[in-house]
Amino acid sequence: MPFINIKMAGPEPTSEQKEQIIQEVTDTMVRVLGKNKERVMVMLETLKDDDIGVGGKSIKKIKEESK
Amino acid sequence: MPFINIKMAGPEPTSEQKEQIIQEVTDTMVRVLGKNKERVMVMLETLKDDDIGVGGKSIKKIKEESK
Amino acid sequence: MPFINIKMAGPEPTSEQKEQIIQEVTDTMVRVLGKNKERVMVMLETLKDDDIGVGGKSIKKIKEESK
Amino acid sequence: MPFINIKMAGPEPTSEQKEQIIQEVTDTMVRVLGKNKERVMVMLETLKDDDIGVGGKSIKKIKEESK
Amino acid sequence: MPFINIKMAGPEPTSEQKEQIIQEVTDTMVRVLGKNKERVMVMLETLKDDDIGVGGKSIKKIKEESK
Amino acid sequence: MPFINIKMAGPEPTSEQKEQIIQEVTDTMVRVLGKNKERVMVMLETLKDDDIGVGGKSIKKIKEESK
Repeated sequence: MPFINIKMAGPEPTSEQKEQIIQEVTDTMVRVLGKNKERVMVMLETLKDDDIGVGGKSIKKIKEESK
Repeated sequence: MPFINIKMAGPEPTSEQKEQIIQEVTDTMVRVLGKNKERVMVMLETLKDDDIGVGGKSIKKIKEESK
Repeated sequence: MPFINIKMAGPEPTSEQKEQIIQEVTDTMVRVLGKNKERVMVMLETLKDDDIGVGGKSIKKIKEESK
Repeated sequence: MPFINIKMAGPEPTSEQKEQIIQEVTDTMVRVLGKNKERVMVMLETLKDDDIGVGGKSIKKIKEESK
Repeated sequence: MPFINIKMAGPEPTSEQKEQIIQEVTDTMVRVLGKNKERVMVMLETLKDDDIGVGGKSIKKIKEESK
Repeated sequence: MPFINIKMAGPEPTSEQKEQIIQEVTDTMVRVLGKNKERVMVMLETLKDDDIGVGGKSIKKIKEESK
């Protein structure tokens, strides 16, 4: 029954990286909590740099200012 | 006040299917809980097959392995 | 694979009402989109009146002002 | 630690508008609750008009019917 | 149509603080994006210190280690 | 920047289990995607059995029927 939603900044992970993440976080839920592997649902979402902010600034602005 | 967020794998529903889903889940909240129809908000999100995992594998991988 | 998250104001639905909502929204996804019933996950969350706001005011305040 | 997720209908805000929203909601959390500015995370998501419903109809349909 | 979900660590804000946050983030969406005030929905969720992690540690552990 | 939200059925994990989950999913994001550990935010939410449904039934009902 665990639902794991991972929202992150780009660059978008490759399919292989996504597969690795899905496998590892599922394994964590099964090993640590004994959850039923078939019932673990994972959803990944990659957002654009100007859609994410930390410390009051978008990632886009933070990256521009660090050039 | 109900907020209903539906995240799902593709293929992306047609506009007609989306309209049907919005209408039905709204009706459920109104009929079962007496909620104010005008205050029911529904948001649909369709994700790519490699962004969703079940049982430790992405939908993409599950589909490839079932060919 | 559909994940349906329903956040709402109280009063908290009864177990019977929750069962009805889970059944109906699952049926909508199966009937309208042909989704696999066993893969439809629904999560309900009831929030307190001062944790929800519409039109710039909390539900708590709206209810107090309508007395 | 606050995580602020804002989902909205289009048109997609400009980068400048996104920057303004990120700055303002972060400031609100810092000023009202004394949160650590560097720990405030904001994520913005713009959805298509047929992916959002209010009152049992999609925004797309509402806009079409109001022409 | 904007839906704003704010998840945060405790202590839980007072009702007055919640009212202030709801009002301010709603005002931001109306002023910056011209959204319809009556359609802006805000939901606040306060989580326990051991339910939130940053940098690989829970807030609970971070607070314990900083004593 | 990754935000990881894990919603699950009870029983609620112990603080030690929560610590383990936070540490492991954070490590996955750092190792697989090279994310900045200090920017990885994890939020855990445990829901009651009648608030979660799979296959059109609540966990509560599934457990009752399996007795």
